[in-house]
Amino acid sequence: VTDRLALQLAFLKEADKLKSIVRKNLIGDRSRRENSAEHSWHLALTAAVLAEYAARPVDLTQVLRTVLIHDLVEIDAGDTFSYGTAGQADKAAREALAAERLFSLLPADQALELQSLWRAFEDGSTAEGRFARVVDWLQPLLLHELTGGPVWKEHQVRKSQVLARVGGIAQDAPRLWPWVVELLDRATREGWLVDA
Amino acid sequence: VTDRLALQLAFLKEADKLKSIVRKNLIGDRSRRENSAEHSWHLALTAAVLAEYAARPVDLTQVLRTVLIHDLVEIDAGDTFSYGTAGQADKAAREALAAERLFSLLPADQALELQSLWRAFEDGSTAEGRFARVVDWLQPLLLHELTGGPVWKEHQVRKSQVLARVGGIAQDAPRLWPWVVELLDRATREGWLVDA
Repeated sequence: VTDRLALQLAFLKEADKLKSIVRKNLIGDRSRRENSAEHSWHLALTAAVLAEYAARPVDLTQVLRTVLIHDLVEIDAGDTFSYGTAGQADKAAREALAAERLFSLLPADQALELQSLWRAFEDGSTAEGRFARVVDWLQPLLLHELTGGPVWKEHQVRKSQVLARVGGIAQDAPRLWPWVVELLDRATREGWLVDA
Repeated sequence: VTDRLALQLAFLKEADKLKSIVRKNLIGDRSRRENSAEHSWHLALTAAVLAEYAARPVDLTQVLRTVLIHDLVEIDAGDTFSYGTAGQADKAAREALAAERLFSLLPADQALELQSLWRAFEDGSTAEGRFARVVDWLQPLLLHELTGGPVWKEHQVRKSQVLARVGGIAQDAPRLWPWVVELLDRATREGWLVDA
């Protein structure tokens, strides 16, 4: 076994820990909270099925690689809830350290490549990074719809907060935006979201 | 919202059920069994990191799409343990029916495309389908190594059974084969596998 392969396999074994990072959202049957590994799978499937809606043409391979690795930093930094204040202040710093450690487990060429995909996701600095963010905003909406919004209700999330968070969909995948608007209107009518 | 998008979103919501399909393998910290959604994520990550080992050049996008959808049939057909006799007889028929129902939730062009990727995975009829099978054989080995082989021990799996199951790695990713041989030798020495 070459040194290169040994590094790659060590990275893949470390990545297994993402299965134990638990998010706030419930899976569709409400039986338990979603973990970040299966969330990443659902994002990748969503990206593959909805790629045609990207505002700018995207290289699907790069989008898929991005969503597959976008949450690995949570192995060190944990999951930070989008609609809470806890952990938001130093989130970027904690995650940058985590990215440095985790991607550096790989051979240098691959470490650089994944570090750069992760950075483009965080900054929205490429078409692929931006479309990866679109699916990362959209998939939780699908789960809120499937489950009837209990997590929004529990945290008394306001419609304006969700609009502020996912508003980039209007720009980066405009043909998906009418669905978002319909869902948020319905969520407000049903009392899943606070109408404010 | 267009009819096309409505079909695509319905498919993505149905796919969420893969998170509740539980496999025999444990995740790395042995805390629980792995589900098929996070398994699919781990395969996709493995494919992205190890693509350079494919015997024939592969289109990585097609490999990734294949591993993302390869287990969806389990939503209807359940997970069938590789080293048991239960369910093996009618596995192919049950899974073909499941593929028909699940992929048909999508618009016709996408249904055909994913059905065809799934078929090529089952039959090993394309370079991409064959490399997807390589990672589907290899990732469980990583988990057996991480966990110290408790699932093999529990089912008294024989080394010859594992060699028969994953032997295609020697052909389709020959530079990964030495690692497989080393691991299985070690697993036999440690008593994780029956030496037969």
